[in-house]
Amino acid sequence: MPSRSPQLVGRAVRVLVCTEKKTFVTRELSEVRVTFEGIEGDRHAGHTRPADVRTPWYPKGTPIRNTRQLSLVSTEELALVAETLGVPKVLASWLGANLELTGVPRLTHVPPGTRLFFPDDAVLAVEGENEPCIGPGKVIEEHHPDRVKLASRFVKAAWERRGLVAWVDRPGVIRAGDDVRVMLPKPVSYVLP
Amino acid sequence: MPSRSPQLVGRAVRVLVCTEKKTFVTRELSEVRVTFEGIEGDRHAGHTRPADVRTPWYPKGTPIRNTRQLSLVSTEELALVAETLGVPKVLASWLGANLELTGVPRLTHVPPGTRLFFPDDAVLAVEGENEPCIGPGKVIEEHHPDRVKLASRFVKAAWERRGLVAWVDRPGVIRAGDDVRVMLPKPVSYVLP
Repeated sequence: MPSRSPQLVGRAVRVLVCTEKKTFVTRELSEVRVTFEGIEGDRHAGHTRPADVRTPWYPKGTPIRNTRQLSLVSTEELALVAETLGVPKVLASWLGANLELTGVPRLTHVPPGTRLFFPDDAVLAVEGENEPCIGPGKVIEEHHPDRVKLASRFVKAAWERRGLVAWVDRPGVIRAGDDVRVMLPKPVSYVLP
Repeated sequence: MPSRSPQLVGRAVRVLVCTEKKTFVTRELSEVRVTFEGIEGDRHAGHTRPADVRTPWYPKGTPIRNTRQLSLVSTEELALVAETLGVPKVLASWLGANLELTGVPRLTHVPPGTRLFFPDDAVLAVEGENEPCIGPGKVIEEHHPDRVKLASRFVKAAWERRGLVAWVDRPGVIRAGDDVRVMLPKPVSYVLP
């Protein structure tokens, strides 16, 4: 348990995984085991990953450290996205999320370096905001064929509400229903000269 | 090269390494190779490390991800520490630093998640501030036996000036004299409810 303050406590509503290659949509499990590679068997697990559109400052395919092992979203922010799109709900699985949390306000704004502590040893470290792309928008659109342009509207609707990516700082097990203790890094302000 | 702004450019004045077990004091080399484990042969290299006094929220000895592979200090902040202590200079090697940078103002305040790009592929990711402890103070005291209580005064003198710890995001070579391009993460402000 973290001794440094400040902290707050949320809850893991759902844990999800994707073991397929042809889709990023995740499916719910009651628990997952995380190692230093990420969620065992998940398509985003690995010590390293090839650089892609998320890291345009590297040549495509360059092996870099995988700091995007898990995708985290919040119930509250998903509800805001659904409201903006005018659909009844947006599911965490449609966004390929691995964890849906509740009780952490403005989850997407939680700063890099934040640690998330789970009861059964697992600790995640926040890499940062997961910027929305059109992929999940297409999935939402498939579920609402009567609605117009949901795919392209998703990126704007989900801006700063699409959650976080994180890596595993300490292996363990994460279960649906777990409390999640949030330890923010020491606040810093850095302004360019 | 990073395409996201803002950025600034500093320079690596020195690269240093410690291959011994009985001291943390580093020695200067003209270049070092960094892998996903850190600096090859350095005492702090490794994919994981045992939890210690730096991570009191973990049981001591627990294997955790090694986000403290390299220690970075700045010429400008070392000069401030020396001035506060009333000694002619404080060397990066005395602090066990692996890199001495110049031209990055307030280096210790550079936020977690910042990436540092070197010309020969190497990229470091900032874990955060390296909080000063008494060890380097003792080394400074050994070099100034005529001065009083330098060891204990070091911690206060080096507060928020002791530099950063970082891990390797992309392997490569780091050389003394290299330019260092600094890419800050997207600014976030998160206030607890």
